[in-house]
Amino acid sequence: MSVSDALIARTILAGTVAEGAPARDLPSAWDRDAPEPAQAERCLRQAAEATGAAAPAPSPLPPVEAGPLHALGIGALQAAFAAGTTDPVALVAALRERIARHPSGRDAVLAPVPGADDAAAESARRIRAGEARPLEGIPFGIKDIIDCAGAPVTCGSRLTGERVAEADATVVARLRAAGAIPLAMLATTEFACGSAHNPRYGAVANPWDRTRWTGGSSTGSGAALAARLMPLALGTDTGGSIRVPSAWCGVTGLKATRGLVPRTGVAPLSWTLDHVGPMARSAADLARVMPWIAGPDGADPHAAGRYDASRARDLAGLRVGVPDGWFTAMQDDAVLAAWEAMLRLLERRGARLVPVDLGAVATAHQDGYTIVMAELASLQEPDLDRAAALDPGTRARLEQGRLFSAADYLRALRRRPLVLAQVLDALAEVDVLVTPGLGGEAPSLDTLTVAVNGAAHPLQAVLPRNTMLFDYTGLPALMLPTGRGRTGLPVAAQVVGKPYDDAVCLSVGAAFQRETEYHLVAPREAG
Amino acid sequence: MSVSDALIARTILAGTVAEGAPARDLPSAWDRDAPEPAQAERCLRQAAEATGAAAPAPSPLPPVEAGPLHALGIGALQAAFAAGTTDPVALVAALRERIARHPSGRDAVLAPVPGADDAAAESARRIRAGEARPLEGIPFGIKDIIDCAGAPVTCGSRLTGERVAEADATVVARLRAAGAIPLAMLATTEFACGSAHNPRYGAVANPWDRTRWTGGSSTGSGAALAARLMPLALGTDTGGSIRVPSAWCGVTGLKATRGLVPRTGVAPLSWTLDHVGPMARSAADLARVMPWIAGPDGADPHAAGRYDASRARDLAGLRVGVPDGWFTAMQDDAVLAAWEAMLRLLERRGARLVPVDLGAVATAHQDGYTIVMAELASLQEPDLDRAAALDPGTRARLEQGRLFSAADYLRALRRRPLVLAQVLDALAEVDVLVTPGLGGEAPSLDTLTVAVNGAAHPLQAVLPRNTMLFDYTGLPALMLPTGRGRTGLPVAAQVVGKPYDDAVCLSVGAAFQRETEYHLVAPREAG
Repeated sequence: MSVSDALIARTILAGTVAEGAPARDLPSAWDRDAPEPAQAERCLRQAAEATGAAAPAPSPLPPVEAGPLHALGIGALQAAFAAGTTDPVALVAALRERIARHPSGRDAVLAPVPGADDAAAESARRIRAGEARPLEGIPFGIKDIIDCAGAPVTCGSRLTGERVAEADATVVARLRAAGAIPLAMLATTEFACGSAHNPRYGAVANPWDRTRWTGGSSTGSGAALAARLMPLALGTDTGGSIRVPSAWCGVTGLKATRGLVPRTGVAPLSWTLDHVGPMARSAADLARVMPWIAGPDGADPHAAGRYDASRARDLAGLRVGVPDGWFTAMQDDAVLAAWEAMLRLLERRGARLVPVDLGAVATAHQDGYTIVMAELASLQEPDLDRAAALDPGTRARLEQGRLFSAADYLRALRRRPLVLAQVLDALAEVDVLVTPGLGGEAPSLDTLTVAVNGAAHPLQAVLPRNTMLFDYTGLPALMLPTGRGRTGLPVAAQVVGKPYDDAVCLSVGAAFQRETEYHLVAPREAG
Repeated sequence: MSVSDALIARTILAGTVAEGAPARDLPSAWDRDAPEPAQAERCLRQAAEATGAAAPAPSPLPPVEAGPLHALGIGALQAAFAAGTTDPVALVAALRERIARHPSGRDAVLAPVPGADDAAAESARRIRAGEARPLEGIPFGIKDIIDCAGAPVTCGSRLTGERVAEADATVVARLRAAGAIPLAMLATTEFACGSAHNPRYGAVANPWDRTRWTGGSSTGSGAALAARLMPLALGTDTGGSIRVPSAWCGVTGLKATRGLVPRTGVAPLSWTLDHVGPMARSAADLARVMPWIAGPDGADPHAAGRYDASRARDLAGLRVGVPDGWFTAMQDDAVLAAWEAMLRLLERRGARLVPVDLGAVATAHQDGYTIVMAELASLQEPDLDRAAALDPGTRARLEQGRLFSAADYLRALRRRPLVLAQVLDALAEVDVLVTPGLGGEAPSLDTLTVAVNGAAHPLQAVLPRNTMLFDYTGLPALMLPTGRGRTGLPVAAQVVGKPYDDAVCLSVGAAFQRETEYHLVAPREAG
């Protein structure tokens, strides 16, 4: 074996023996979290008060009668449950009602998960009995490539028939075991790689502007969170599929370090690059979830490492890498301005900005594509005789993937540890890297072009430009909203960490979100 | 990830965390070992007596003045050292003298390893002081793709120039640490895959008949052992490269379970299928070596498992799988007769023969080739502009490897856990599988065809037929001599075990060799 093989073994792949997820308490720095102010003032006040309480004893506040429960994030819900101002049964009922009447309930949500009412009743009982589990009563949505026992899982494809999952994926089972409630299956592009207009279910509109797309492939997860249909959703990310819809829908998503969240029970697109991760309303909420879904499961051979909440840190003295070149080219000025404003805020709070040169990224970016398409072609080979039923986007990638030679594929695979070494070297003197998110705002569903300073670019030229490198290298990457673009839709930035520094990324995101409200603003609703 | 991915993770790949090699004493069942009777009667008698002694106290026997030390295997040498009848300094001198005058010293041996005299003096001192390490003073040869500090390592190629290794490969460092003495670098086909007629060094003749080939790719290791130039040699096996020269040279070689012997410092041919293993004169000698070279080294990410000497067992009640179809087709009647005689002997000693159906092997066999050639093509890609200097055999495989698509390669790779599951299922009711070795005797160096019942077959049709499946699946496989073929050259059989059952294979081989003398017979020498 080569030195580079050894390197990757010691970093991303270190430690493949199963170990339990860590069970630490979150540091107190996480605690500010709030629902959307305009809609939920009373809940917000109650939640903040309950959150501030030293012990989660029943609050003296009166119960919420008919408040906008859908506006609460995970932290606020936990506080409200602890305070007794609402309970999971009421929450599930409110969300179900909202799903039924909200336009995103018709495109982002594919199917309910059976048993949510029973689970909610059990959660309510446990909360009353003082036996609450860490994520007790928190409803979550599940991307349609992640198995959830008893629910239809179709990968958004016409080829999968009426499949119902027999067992939970590891990540779903872990959330269930932590007390969370699987609520609904959420839309995706076909096999997490097809085009925006899914041939089985149609496109998912962006709740900020229903003439626009959410970005893929975790389309339903991005839209359901933006539409406040649920406080948590699971996504997957192979070239950017958690971070792209997070950016364009104005929510917060973490592509965890490669292997940190096991992929057992998740339909593969590219087993080399697939990542599972959570999407929510804030970095603080993601940090509430990560300890319970991270760590090897003894079944996914790529699963490794653990979530170390103690790595969370404040901004004083934080060294923030600022990239140039690849990451700042093809960016709308509004995206850059919001990114620069974030950097200035971090700097004002004590962070030190350090220019970082990540070297030549273009080849690594293309190598990521080569791996995804070659592995897609391999995975879909048994369906070649039914390829006519595939989404045209899936079919195009499949056909392109079949043209790669073994040497092409292996070249892309074998350069990966070298690129990882190059990137880690570039990050040696910083704690995190903060990049602009996507180059522009969400594209129109008609044209699927992204406007960058007035020029229309094809989706694929912009979409995974700043995200793919971190699938290829496996580094943790958080996408979070940083403001609005030229047309009023969300723009975002990305916080990238070193392997297993997921908690560092989340603490930087949470620090930014303690001082800003971009993550608290929801799309305006009709009526 | 799929169920099959999980399966392979739990079997071949289980446990990649570094752990030390086990340091168990060998069970007493290993102890019969002897030099070639016709040449070394006196040494044999002395060694047997010393071996039988309960304590390795200095023997009362007189010292050997000028005995054929080269005829002694590892066990006999250890006994002679313990008895004080010879010492490593005398042994190294005798072997060096033999290498200088033996024809195989000119083709099998490429270069001496510096420092052997100093190491022998240190070993002699330790033995006198009662401080002997487990393999104290045992000289060994090293295939020319395995790094040995200070020695030239060329991979048998004109492309590698005058490279001298800076550090030991893990396997060499471990043997050194156990007291063994690196003596000489041994020939190989180019990059362990080229043709018989190596363009840099020429062909290695078979010591049994110098008009014949040794078989590859561990050509020098097979010839040096058969010629009694040293008692131990390291080989590598990707499609059969330890077992083929073991069979055709009448020596005993173990392709250890995939990952059991780390590959750090060994030039790769196919990182998916490469195995490192020892070659010697007997299974008992291999069992003396395995504990000291097995176990992860923290650098090779594929290294896993440990050598469990306690798995060794006797023949009473042993369930021996007997395959048909693929493994018995394309076999000369003499090979089959020797194999059947071995099975009858095992049965007479209490083993139970159980027919085993391994299913369709042909596809798996071809998949093994696809992986090797695609990975070779990837590894040699930087040398494409110098391809004219490659061995024509290497170049042909490289050119073929470049034609495979990524989907071809991944199909071969992804079927592997399924084939492993199929093979393990077929072996569920047996302890080992015993197959015929190669289809015929060593080919002529002129024609490179193998005669099977009088018909000449191309080398590649016969050579890796019964070996490749166990590189592809990673199972341990021992090749050992079972008699002579139609033209008087050695034929062999193969003992295959379940993952990490290397000691089981060796104990079956040792039991057979306690009752037979095929492994004790050396080629007749001129003069």
